Amino acid sequence: MLTPEENELLTRVGPGTPMGLLMRAYWLPALLSTELPEADGKPLRLRLLGEHLLAFRDSDGSVGVIGEHCAHRGASLYYGRNEKCGMRCVYHGWKYDRSGQCVDMPSEPPESTFKDKIKLAGYPPPERSGMVWVYMGPLAEPPALPALEWAMLPRDQSHISKRVQQANWAQVLEGGIDSSHGGFLHSMLDNANMSGKQRRGYMFHQVDTHPRYEIVDTAYGSVIGARRSVEGKYYWRIYQFLMPFYTMIPPYADLALGGHAFVPRDDETTIVWTATWHPARPLQEGVDERHSAPGTHGIHVTDFLPPSPEADGAWFPRASRANDYFLDWAKQKTERMSGIPGVPIQDAAMQESMGAIYDRSNEHLGASDAAIIHVRRRWLRLAKALASGEQPALPGIDCAPAYNVRSAGVMLDTDQPWFEAAQKWLQAEAGVLQESV
Amino acid sequence: MLTPEENELLTRVGPGTPMGLLMRAYWLPALLSTELPEADGKPLRLRLLGEHLLAFRDSDGSVGVIGEHCAHRGASLYYGRNEKCGMRCVYHGWKYDRSGQCVDMPSEPPESTFKDKIKLAGYPPPERSGMVWVYMGPLAEPPALPALEWAMLPRDQSHISKRVQQANWAQVLEGGIDSSHGGFLHSMLDNANMSGKQRRGYMFHQVDTHPRYEIVDTAYGSVIGARRSVEGKYYWRIYQFLMPFYTMIPPYADLALGGHAFVPRDDETTIVWTATWHPARPLQEGVDERHSAPGTHGIHVTDFLPPSPEADGAWFPRASRANDYFLDWAKQKTERMSGIPGVPIQDAAMQESMGAIYDRSNEHLGASDAAIIHVRRRWLRLAKALASGEQPALPGIDCAPAYNVRSAGVMLDTDQPWFEAAQKWLQAEAGVLQESV
Amino acid sequence: MLTPEENELLTRVGPGTPMGLLMRAYWLPALLSTELPEADGKPLRLRLLGEHLLAFRDSDGSVGVIGEHCAHRGASLYYGRNEKCGMRCVYHGWKYDRSGQCVDMPSEPPESTFKDKIKLAGYPPPERSGMVWVYMGPLAEPPALPALEWAMLPRDQSHISKRVQQANWAQVLEGGIDSSHGGFLHSMLDNANMSGKQRRGYMFHQVDTHPRYEIVDTAYGSVIGARRSVEGKYYWRIYQFLMPFYTMIPPYADLALGGHAFVPRDDETTIVWTATWHPARPLQEGVDERHSAPGTHGIHVTDFLPPSPEADGAWFPRASRANDYFLDWAKQKTERMSGIPGVPIQDAAMQESMGAIYDRSNEHLGASDAAIIHVRRRWLRLAKALASGEQPALPGIDCAPAYNVRSAGVMLDTDQPWFEAAQKWLQAEAGVLQESV
Repeated sequence: MLTPEENELLTRVGPGTPMGLLMRAYWLPALLSTELPEADGKPLRLRLLGEHLLAFRDSDGSVGVIGEHCAHRGASLYYGRNEKCGMRCVYHGWKYDRSGQCVDMPSEPPESTFKDKIKLAGYPPPERSGMVWVYMGPLAEPPALPALEWAMLPRDQSHISKRVQQANWAQVLEGGIDSSHGGFLHSMLDNANMSGKQRRGYMFHQVDTHPRYEIVDTAYGSVIGARRSVEGKYYWRIYQFLMPFYTMIPPYADLALGGHAFVPRDDETTIVWTATWHPARPLQEGVDERHSAPGTHGIHVTDFLPPSPEADGAWFPRASRANDYFLDWAKQKTERMSGIPGVPIQDAAMQESMGAIYDRSNEHLGASDAAIIHVRRRWLRLAKALASGEQPALPGIDCAPAYNVRSAGVMLDTDQPWFEAAQKWLQAEAGVLQESV
Repeated sequence: MLTPEENELLTRVGPGTPMGLLMRAYWLPALLSTELPEADGKPLRLRLLGEHLLAFRDSDGSVGVIGEHCAHRGASLYYGRNEKCGMRCVYHGWKYDRSGQCVDMPSEPPESTFKDKIKLAGYPPPERSGMVWVYMGPLAEPPALPALEWAMLPRDQSHISKRVQQANWAQVLEGGIDSSHGGFLHSMLDNANMSGKQRRGYMFHQVDTHPRYEIVDTAYGSVIGARRSVEGKYYWRIYQFLMPFYTMIPPYADLALGGHAFVPRDDETTIVWTATWHPARPLQEGVDERHSAPGTHGIHVTDFLPPSPEADGAWFPRASRANDYFLDWAKQKTERMSGIPGVPIQDAAMQESMGAIYDRSNEHLGASDAAIIHVRRRWLRLAKALASGEQPALPGIDCAPAYNVRSAGVMLDTDQPWFEAAQKWLQAEAGVLQESV
Repeated sequence: MLTPEENELLTRVGPGTPMGLLMRAYWLPALLSTELPEADGKPLRLRLLGEHLLAFRDSDGSVGVIGEHCAHRGASLYYGRNEKCGMRCVYHGWKYDRSGQCVDMPSEPPESTFKDKIKLAGYPPPERSGMVWVYMGPLAEPPALPALEWAMLPRDQSHISKRVQQANWAQVLEGGIDSSHGGFLHSMLDNANMSGKQRRGYMFHQVDTHPRYEIVDTAYGSVIGARRSVEGKYYWRIYQFLMPFYTMIPPYADLALGGHAFVPRDDETTIVWTATWHPARPLQEGVDERHSAPGTHGIHVTDFLPPSPEADGAWFPRASRANDYFLDWAKQKTERMSGIPGVPIQDAAMQESMGAIYDRSNEHLGASDAAIIHVRRRWLRLAKALASGEQPALPGIDCAPAYNVRSAGVMLDTDQPWFEAAQKWLQAEAGVLQESV
């Protein structure tokens, strides 16, 4: 349970807020490269951390992500001309390059140096593994990109998708580090459709529905072990939380790994990035590794509403509160716990129903919420330090290589120290996947 | 005319407001039993007094109305599982019975007693005469249900319907105790379509358009007499106002009686319950007693918008501001005063056009508004007492049997004391209806 | 750049605001006469300066514009009866004449004088040249109507149209006195479709894209000269700004003149009136003087959304943010600077994209914004005086005949004093048009 003041500290990410300062210290995955298919093509509005931005691919094929509104009189550059390595406002012709620098101002006298003083928000964004990464912080030289395995593999070994969820980033992230909901929300009443490899791990969830948690803080985040008593041993499902918003889901057997980035779009919506990847082979069709067949345990969403000016493209799933997330009340009785088709939509239904910004002064946390309590406490310590003007060390900022880790489900003897014993699963070794349970 | 502060006191009914405290002392009609047709069926979201609630019929066929959101982390129980005498949240499996008590918490260790401490808002709601009644107050034992005649008759002698109006409860109720608008808003330019029994009373409205009011307070509310000079006598139309939000409309001749309950859904919308009933015989088709034919004086609405998550089912009439309430400008010239078809929609058009919460610092009340002034003053006295921490006696709470009354239209000599003389019409005698004028 | 406080002063026009007081001193063009086609016909809701008003044509054929809501209990007179020279509320029958005076109150006793004390906002509005003019100020006798040439010509020499723009009046007006955007926003990449008479002036815009400004204040407003160096001479485009919200656009050659009135509908929307007129001949079809063919430089909008209760009729253009203002990204590359079809829609796209009320604390004005800076400073001086309770002289109020002026584009020697030299173009001489460049 948080006080209303702590809840505000945790959830608000706009310019000048403590959590907003913290988020702006990190790189943010912002776009799929395919959203900007061609040089000098149509630009794209997007929102990150509550700011209105414009993305475009310039004449050289390089991407720019800059403030959406012209510094002159505020017209949107979305209607502008993407030409000769810059976006030109069509109101009076001011032009900006991909760093946000004003490079032309034809309405002013030729001798004017006014344009040199005008710069929009922007830092030339790199592309890696089909994604555009944005840095919105104050440093002239941003830190290195985090060495996330899924963002560095060959394209056929990693599949990355994107959706917008209508809920604050913190409640979406809390769902991502909450092992205990898996055994309920995502479970089937009838596991017949599940592949043999998935089935064994899922059954363990149902054998012991109240895992015990142990958490180890690392340089880049936290490692969360959820322990279930199974067959005289401990079944450990080990999650990674990586600052500021990444999670990794333990796989089953030698199936693909899964992970998320929960990027705050604004205070009330979150860009949910989803990755599936395999370190040792191309992803396979038909087993939820790439696309998710209806009724399976795949984690990618494929059915979206048409684009609209408010949607930054077309990333709002068709399943929504307006249509009960396609909940099938008959199937809820016979097939699946929630009646809602698809793991990510089940999460969206729960997390959106908590309200756009969940009021944590009403919650009642139990023993199964240990990971949420732990990570949240860490967040709040940082936010309070930032709010009081301190400059706390920010986990993960200076250790990009340390992000090269994995999650895993492992079976250990009851006297084994789990964190140490699981290291060979948790460190990402190139080209090798240690089989999970 | 009220001060802005008085207007706030009168209209706000959310948790903790003075008028909200007062409303929570009484039973609220909340649902038609038919809205929850089957045991363990689909639940229903509803809003009462600004609170988000969930209604369900449990495995035993009993109805529960409890807080919508799980106490754990706030997910909506609407997506939950209605099974084995309780609603189970599908996020982590917490389960609540129809009193709101948490009865299962599978995510916690088996030895945990955490669940015993968790209770959502809720009191097992009784059903009477096809309606579900909700008590949202603080008492362990609520008062008795009010003995309203229309809620206790055999089903073929009473017809009850429901609609949502987009206006604050107080301005809808004020319309219900305002006799003088009947002669304008609901009148026809051409009375040819009216039944003979209705026509005589309606003509009296038009003979004397400015009634004099007398009001008598009772243990359960107020009796309002509107006096018109007709044919050398006094034609008294006598209305009942019963705390906190019931009204009864005088009938014509031996036609069915009519009544309303104006239940605050939130500060800006009202659930309007409408009842027609006859103490001595089954209701008849074709004379506005059950359904209301277009162009007649029936008071039931039958044409609604499709259900939506915001509509708690489908109780928003299709006629609305967006379509001018189907006002027919040609018929306004020739057929009916308002041009709007249907008595309840005429009321909705007027009351919604005053704004969702009417600002009474702009009003100009006259002699014809005596009943509104009187009842409102009584309301405000109670609200001010509650706001200052007093515990005033609440009219009607402890006299459920006294609600068994009726309204009537009677013709009296000019020297007769109306309240006393009308008692045989006003007391509800089982199986007998004294004919009105 | 303004402070946030100055921005509020400049933009807010509701009752009691300084700028609202100022606007209420002047006549406001409110309706086309054709919007109220018949006596005793359907009334029309409209919004002016943030107030909700009702317009109707009474039994005598005279127009009334009065407060929308009945003084009694606030019901909308829109649903009322337009009969016998007044609007009658259908709730209780109160009736108002076209000055807003209550003239009948049938719900009150016949001897009551209550009605004499009840008056809604309203002043009997005159019609001139197919338009209804409204005075919302405090004076018993309003000033004379401004002698604008376009509002006094025979109907075949003047064409007047109307649209609503979703932006605060001040940012729309600023676009109207901003000569420098013409050379960008409204320009073609290929001038082949332009008439010979237009083409020469347009080319001058592109020869010199950074005009120098000189501004002369007059009794009724300001005259703005934008100077471009062309062919060894000075090409002066001379704009009129007339208090409180009129502008005139210089014509090309002997083509029709153009002008606007930017009337605040509320703080976030503006009624944009557009006039084209010719002092010496009927307007011609096919050269943008009356209707604007797609792809031309016409300034009238003809394609609107269907009427809705929020739209005061049907004055919201179909081209909007939701459809990218019909921007054609391919034509943006090859045909026209903006890719958006139509001069007024180009303006709307820019001005609406600045936000409903542009935050001028973020702007960066340059030398080309001299006219905006000048006029805005004049506005703010008046607003600050009004805010501090002074009664400053209001430009234009007492000199209605002085409004009979024009704009012009003229070619002058570099040593000629422009304001004096251009007088024969700027004074509106009946039946004569001095040819512009």
